[in-house]
Amino acid sequence: MRVATIRLWTDEEVEKAPEIKAVFDDIRATRKSDFVNNFWRALANQPVLLERTWTSIKQVMIAPGTLDPLTKELIYIAVSTANSCSYCVHSHTAAARAKGLTDEQHAEFLAIVGMASETNNLANAMQIPVDSVFLNS
Amino acid sequence: MRVATIRLWTDEEVEKAPEIKAVFDDIRATRKSDFVNNFWRALANQPVLLERTWTSIKQVMIAPGTLDPLTKELIYIAVSTANSCSYCVHSHTAAARAKGLTDEQHAEFLAIVGMASETNNLANAMQIPVDSVFLNS
Amino acid sequence: MRVATIRLWTDEEVEKAPEIKAVFDDIRATRKSDFVNNFWRALANQPVLLERTWTSIKQVMIAPGTLDPLTKELIYIAVSTANSCSYCVHSHTAAARAKGLTDEQHAEFLAIVGMASETNNLANAMQIPVDSVFLNS
Amino acid sequence: MRVATIRLWTDEEVEKAPEIKAVFDDIRATRKSDFVNNFWRALANQPVLLERTWTSIKQVMIAPGTLDPLTKELIYIAVSTANSCSYCVHSHTAAARAKGLTDEQHAEFLAIVGMASETNNLANAMQIPVDSVFLNS
Amino acid sequence: MRVATIRLWTDEEVEKAPEIKAVFDDIRATRKSDFVNNFWRALANQPVLLERTWTSIKQVMIAPGTLDPLTKELIYIAVSTANSCSYCVHSHTAAARAKGLTDEQHAEFLAIVGMASETNNLANAMQIPVDSVFLNS
Amino acid sequence: MRVATIRLWTDEEVEKAPEIKAVFDDIRATRKSDFVNNFWRALANQPVLLERTWTSIKQVMIAPGTLDPLTKELIYIAVSTANSCSYCVHSHTAAARAKGLTDEQHAEFLAIVGMASETNNLANAMQIPVDSVFLNS
Repeated sequence: MRVATIRLWTDEEVEKAPEIKAVFDDIRATRKSDFVNNFWRALANQPVLLERTWTSIKQVMIAPGTLDPLTKELIYIAVSTANSCSYCVHSHTAAARAKGLTDEQHAEFLAIVGMASETNNLANAMQIPVDSVFLNS
Repeated sequence: MRVATIRLWTDEEVEKAPEIKAVFDDIRATRKSDFVNNFWRALANQPVLLERTWTSIKQVMIAPGTLDPLTKELIYIAVSTANSCSYCVHSHTAAARAKGLTDEQHAEFLAIVGMASETNNLANAMQIPVDSVFLNS
Repeated sequence: MRVATIRLWTDEEVEKAPEIKAVFDDIRATRKSDFVNNFWRALANQPVLLERTWTSIKQVMIAPGTLDPLTKELIYIAVSTANSCSYCVHSHTAAARAKGLTDEQHAEFLAIVGMASETNNLANAMQIPVDSVFLNS
Repeated sequence: MRVATIRLWTDEEVEKAPEIKAVFDDIRATRKSDFVNNFWRALANQPVLLERTWTSIKQVMIAPGTLDPLTKELIYIAVSTANSCSYCVHSHTAAARAKGLTDEQHAEFLAIVGMASETNNLANAMQIPVDSVFLNS
Repeated sequence: MRVATIRLWTDEEVEKAPEIKAVFDDIRATRKSDFVNNFWRALANQPVLLERTWTSIKQVMIAPGTLDPLTKELIYIAVSTANSCSYCVHSHTAAARAKGLTDEQHAEFLAIVGMASETNNLANAMQIPVDSVFLNS
Repeated sequence: MRVATIRLWTDEEVEKAPEIKAVFDDIRATRKSDFVNNFWRALANQPVLLERTWTSIKQVMIAPGTLDPLTKELIYIAVSTANSCSYCVHSHTAAARAKGLTDEQHAEFLAIVGMASETNNLANAMQIPVDSVFLNS
């Protein structure tokens, strides 16, 4: 019985598809881990999308920049929470933990995503006009 | 003509309502600025909600913790973007800038909120089951 | 210059289209008001959709039932707020006021839509499993 | 143990309720299949809503029009993905497959719903003003 | 195996943490029930957030006001449905039932949350401008 | 006064930045039009993001595939509507019109995005379990 709307590729199947295997090899090398999670096993059905998504993820989430890796994960989980993506919240909370997220930081993070959504609804329900000062900052 | 669904309180009106004035005074003192933005002028219609929201915001967004103030703002904007709250995106992007957000950091932030929403939709459209390893991390 | 993505029908144009006019006449008769808001003037481009939507709205929002008219409007605004539909929040807050919504009730309503969205995000970020007792209630 | 928030009607129960049975009979006749999915078994608790929803679905999704049946399903899944409705994504992806959706088309569809959500967040985070040319197109 | 992204506290663990126990005791006393649902067992990881959230919930959802308790629950479920929070829909539908929600009221509620979301999408897809009369109501 | 949260680049400014100009030139050449809309003028602040987004859009929306260009636009608008992205709905409805969208097709499209969102909310409010037959289709 399948649970996803598309097939999840096993390692054996990936082994026989060079185009897919190249991406999986890069995922493993980049992450220095043999584990490849279901998201990529699902995307394996669409080689072009798989390759583009992995390239983008490397550029956006893994390449060094001005935001530290943990901050990036928190921003990612925040969006995933608001979009109600269960898979994404699970996988990126695990990633954040692997990058050092402490319980205290998680507590503060939860308070912020809760508070933001509360005030989003307040602002939307009251249809508050943007202060002109914000438009020139 | 009113634009919001409720009235925005002027300073003159606030001056005559001690309960509201106490909160506005605290906002000004805490932020070390005379400017009080429309969100609070709208909430002034609901003194209990005004007081509770401001107290929570101070606790969550302003009190020192383990996440730095700029990271907090970015998490806040991420949720507000996904929830499509125009007011919140404007006001908190301005706040992030005031806390030192650079153009480079903003560029990386935008890339992450875009990428997260893209993969949220991919995961939701494929209904990917959560890897068991994430449930034990 | 048009602001909507489709044309808004004027009364003159409606006058010449019997199919549209019949719906507009029923809107006016049902609401006992000559005013027809832009939502219907936009839907007038799609006579079948216009007719079906108005019939459903009459059945769901206007026909007497077990929930009182004001409660219905509050449920409607709650969904519209979470979906960030500016037009819907404005029009149904106006409708709720016309049906007797007091400032105190509005204050409580705002507190609930804010609180609900906050706990939605908390529950989604923590991916809390449903208590078995809720599944049998 | 119930999993839904309301009871799912069995064929035996439907058999004893003529109002419900009439709709179920029409679903079976229209779809030329004996299978009635859980959505309708849940709506069976609300005969008026059941009847209205089925009538609308027939009009919107099944009656011939200018958009072909597969395109209609893809639009439906796109909305359901963005709204994070797991049931709807599963049932309509199955429906799209039954209407001939190929793996290649599914791959392109996934790329679009991902890309759209990415640029939605970019546009919302940057609060881009609508180009005047779009308002006159 | 854990299902949530954070640990759910058992009664034995709560017993040893006075700060958490005080909140759980108040939940039990306020609700006149020994049952404490998973939401609070998850929040127990974050004592400050637990305390603040419970205090707010008491103020917003339990303290007597101008909206009756059942109406409050319906507004809550409406937001939770639009935000696709499975846990919240389950727990608050159970709460609404406990507060007397009848099948007929539930049917009307479902019709409204469905209809609202339909017209939200119609209004958003047509980008309908707000009627000036609504801005002065 | 700025309306977006970031600066919109004028043609004069683009002219002086070769990296940006290269992308703008390609946009103009690919679309065979001199007009470059605000989305790209905003992204010009982030050259890497600009380049990656344009390359993806070309691959996903413009390169020939198995879905026709108009179908792609409708899927795009469907997501943008559900995500309440005003800019995206306007720009892609204009694009769909340019690609031949007729009023009749638009009417059917509107009916589907409305209906989908309605049943999404119904399914989410009833928390309907996925039929096992859908998991094997």
